[in-house]
Amino acid sequence: MISRRNSKPVHIGGVTVGGDAPIVVQSMTKTDTRDVRATVRQIKELEECGCELVRLAVPDDEAAQALARIKQGVSLPIIADIHFDHRLALQSLEAGVDGLRLNPGNIADPEKIKQVAMAAKERHVPIRIGVNAGSMPKTADPNLGLADNMVNAALKEIGLLESVDFDLIKVSLKAFDVPATIEAYRSLAEKIPYPLHIGITEAGPPRTGIIRSAVGIGALLWLGIGDTIRVSLTAHPGEEVIAGYEILKSLNLRQHGPVLVSCPTCGRTEVDVVRLVGEVEEQLVKIDKPLKVAVMGCVVNGPGEARDADVGIACGKGKGVLFKKGEKVGVVDEKDLLSVLMREVEKL
Amino acid sequence: MISRRNSKPVHIGGVTVGGDAPIVVQSMTKTDTRDVRATVRQIKELEECGCELVRLAVPDDEAAQALARIKQGVSLPIIADIHFDHRLALQSLEAGVDGLRLNPGNIADPEKIKQVAMAAKERHVPIRIGVNAGSMPKTADPNLGLADNMVNAALKEIGLLESVDFDLIKVSLKAFDVPATIEAYRSLAEKIPYPLHIGITEAGPPRTGIIRSAVGIGALLWLGIGDTIRVSLTAHPGEEVIAGYEILKSLNLRQHGPVLVSCPTCGRTEVDVVRLVGEVEEQLVKIDKPLKVAVMGCVVNGPGEARDADVGIACGKGKGVLFKKGEKVGVVDEKDLLSVLMREVEKL
Repeated sequence: MISRRNSKPVHIGGVTVGGDAPIVVQSMTKTDTRDVRATVRQIKELEECGCELVRLAVPDDEAAQALARIKQGVSLPIIADIHFDHRLALQSLEAGVDGLRLNPGNIADPEKIKQVAMAAKERHVPIRIGVNAGSMPKTADPNLGLADNMVNAALKEIGLLESVDFDLIKVSLKAFDVPATIEAYRSLAEKIPYPLHIGITEAGPPRTGIIRSAVGIGALLWLGIGDTIRVSLTAHPGEEVIAGYEILKSLNLRQHGPVLVSCPTCGRTEVDVVRLVGEVEEQLVKIDKPLKVAVMGCVVNGPGEARDADVGIACGKGKGVLFKKGEKVGVVDEKDLLSVLMREVEKL
Repeated sequence: MISRRNSKPVHIGGVTVGGDAPIVVQSMTKTDTRDVRATVRQIKELEECGCELVRLAVPDDEAAQALARIKQGVSLPIIADIHFDHRLALQSLEAGVDGLRLNPGNIADPEKIKQVAMAAKERHVPIRIGVNAGSMPKTADPNLGLADNMVNAALKEIGLLESVDFDLIKVSLKAFDVPATIEAYRSLAEKIPYPLHIGITEAGPPRTGIIRSAVGIGALLWLGIGDTIRVSLTAHPGEEVIAGYEILKSLNLRQHGPVLVSCPTCGRTEVDVVRLVGEVEEQLVKIDKPLKVAVMGCVVNGPGEARDADVGIACGKGKGVLFKKGEKVGVVDEKDLLSVLMREVEKL
């Protein structure tokens, strides 16, 4: 039901971003990039969570030099995150990175930006123009709002890259403010053909950052905007990837393991649904297949939701009715609900 | 930046839903309604979290009879959730509830529905028509999609209520499927003047349910749709209220305590930002005022975000620059960052 904006795909290593490609989930390492071992380990952890692209901070020469060794140790495409010093971008390209991110607020000299674009072009390496509300170019117009200034910063940098015939471009326009972020992406989406990397910047720790990111990224995706997403959380980057997939799953844009439908419980509930759902959730972590599992507390919506799932239980007093692919297949005692449900899940 | 749909306000106890009123956060008790003591206690817990309306399941006569005693023990307006038996709605009205919820899928007889509406009208008690994908009326058209069937179910019930001159109406159209839910609300929003209660049903346990709810409720709110929200989670209802406020805060639609801006950290970070943010988050729980606090890891976006906050820290190597209301006010050693930051927060 969501009609995606048509964008010109780019290829980052073996991963396509834009066009008809699935919306790519990415994250960023939080290790010291100079620590090759720790960084490679974290990239592998990210890969296990389903991360498809990974970005690394490159704050100095030593970090840039580590990239070649990191690249040898991992299979995910890696993207160098560059600020302030364009030479680090050139070094990262030499090290064999699959993508670059440049922040227009932190490298201002047009000649340096063009130099990076020409080097990236030779190697067919895409560049993300990563505009961020926390580091706007000094040329931002105080009479314009944040969204317009972010869009203008992106358009200016796009012009620089296009002036050297570089078009392997992705763009992001991230702010903490969700309505401003949505406004910026909507405006830019109509002006350029390039794929968009979407996210809410500095969204905070998981408890609040996941909600802010889900609202912002979710609204954009629902509008058809966004070819790759990054959820920014003050936490292990694996949590960013897991949250990213949940956002995509909630809009039916990607599948990634099971979906768990469960009722909030209420004064009608006559079995311990909260405990049962907790146990089911824990056991579903092991399941890769995109199944829909329902655990429902009563007869109001229970049979309807359980019937709609691949495997579902609608609980009553001390027992539950088991449904499989829309058919009622039995009545199960409360104590056996978990084991019977998981047996059916594993059969599928 | 969000322009809210214009709706006809209704009053539930002292709380206005719709019109220009702030978007109301509500939840539902998960205790046995017949257990007056436990239910009153949970309603008070909900009130402490900021809950503004609370709904209670009324599955039988005993639960309906408990309502009068519950009502005496609490100050929040209470709403009786009715399915299957319209007499429970009549009893709930007699018990003095502030609102009713009727599910068109579970009470089909038009005469019974009208009877409830007439009794509610006498007492000026609003009725929410709560359509739910898990309990659709048997008259749903298999040739139509879920969204259209939900809208039609609501319109039919609205017609019944209006036929007895009852217009204290709110409507909800909840499904687990987010795009279908958004589609249904968008369609109905154009057809009726009544306020809308929005939510994603059976969204699951917090880890995934919060994301699904934030995406669905967030997109609707961003579209200007929604006068009251309920986040459905398989968890303590207080978590629903907290998540509800975070959704509203992320769209600048309500204030509710502090907002914490923090960076995800990366290979540039030279202080333990994850730990610091965790500690700050824990201490901010005690603060009621809607402050914006920023804890940032490096010089890329740190100064920009810290300057934009009421109190902010932009960390560097082993220390942080403290900002207050946009002004740099000092440099603080890493070990003192938490105490200095919280002192400034408490001053405000």
